[in-house]
Amino acid sequence: MPKIVDHDERRRDIALAACRAIAHHGIDAVTLADIAREAGYTTGMISHYYASKWEVMLAGLRSMNDRLGRKLLDAASESRSLADLLCEVLPTDAEHRAESRAWLSFWAVSASQPQLVRWSAKTHTDWRALIRHCVISCTPQSTSWPSQVMEDVISSIILFMDGIYVKGLTRSSDYSPKDQIRLLRAHLDALMCWASNHDATEPPHGPAKR
Amino acid sequence: MPKIVDHDERRRDIALAACRAIAHHGIDAVTLADIAREAGYTTGMISHYYASKWEVMLAGLRSMNDRLGRKLLDAASESRSLADLLCEVLPTDAEHRAESRAWLSFWAVSASQPQLVRWSAKTHTDWRALIRHCVISCTPQSTSWPSQVMEDVISSIILFMDGIYVKGLTRSSDYSPKDQIRLLRAHLDALMCWASNHDATEPPHGPAKR
Repeated sequence: MPKIVDHDERRRDIALAACRAIAHHGIDAVTLADIAREAGYTTGMISHYYASKWEVMLAGLRSMNDRLGRKLLDAASESRSLADLLCEVLPTDAEHRAESRAWLSFWAVSASQPQLVRWSAKTHTDWRALIRHCVISCTPQSTSWPSQVMEDVISSIILFMDGIYVKGLTRSSDYSPKDQIRLLRAHLDALMCWASNHDATEPPHGPAKR
Repeated sequence: MPKIVDHDERRRDIALAACRAIAHHGIDAVTLADIAREAGYTTGMISHYYASKWEVMLAGLRSMNDRLGRKLLDAASESRSLADLLCEVLPTDAEHRAESRAWLSFWAVSASQPQLVRWSAKTHTDWRALIRHCVISCTPQSTSWPSQVMEDVISSIILFMDGIYVKGLTRSSDYSPKDQIRLLRAHLDALMCWASNHDATEPPHGPAKR
């Protein structure tokens, strides 16, 4: 009787192995052979599930993000503050640092490889949706913000956290975990104050363009 | 009579050629041969001035930063607003995009090569000093801020601009030059408001740690 293979599960296993291999070797240095070794498969088997090195690495990055997303959603359901929530996903421990390092390498490579930007579009859309969910669940008054203010608040959080990912990795002595948390809290305080000063009576696009 | 060579000038020429080569090929792909070709020298000649590929590339990045710095200092002397000043160095045109791309690649590589972080420490110190100068010259009331608030304002600007460099390059359709400018202006508005709410009568470190 032929062995029954769960192909979806195998794809997921390979993606998870890719995460571990990326975290260990760096996305710039990791090879398909490293990922295969980590997954316990041959490189031929990996090629059966993913068309290229970048495709499997992107699957790895996606599964990292899915895990971060679940972590944020769990925390959001516990009705904690927005700052407490987002501090959960700062690169303040080895695991998050490895993930941030993988993303930083991916960004650097994707700046010169437009197809990677297209492939990763969904990841960015999902991330925006997640931040929106966190803002709304922690800040009930946000429902009265004009839509442009809401979009700008989401963008501002994403940009600031990207900056923390960069500096937390490349200048860790100047941006310690304690500094990252203090700076993110201050950013959110300032941002919420800015947003609440823009009520729905202002003209569309007006407030953010001052 | 032997030809008189200005070695400092030649080092500068090579660093400038490295900038152009990095901008053209990307820091991840550029080779010493590319830089030599751009400079009009042999790779042997380059090795006479710089000990490694990374040393010459770092000199290139430094000279990019020096140019950005001069641009900011010139703009600061014209007593423009902080937002107008900092918008000058966003990746909104091809030249700044190429420079940001070089920095993004450098960050990705330096996350796994600690010696690059040490070598580039001065660049970060200079950048902080420049942002401080801009904040003080555009915001006279900043002299009454507690020192921790001043440091956090500088960090916050640097983190936010790093985020813009990342997203302006890797998600340019979602973060157009117009968006980058609007978001940076909103960030500075929010941040200045936050800082001015923390006067010198509060205990040291108190305000920023809320």
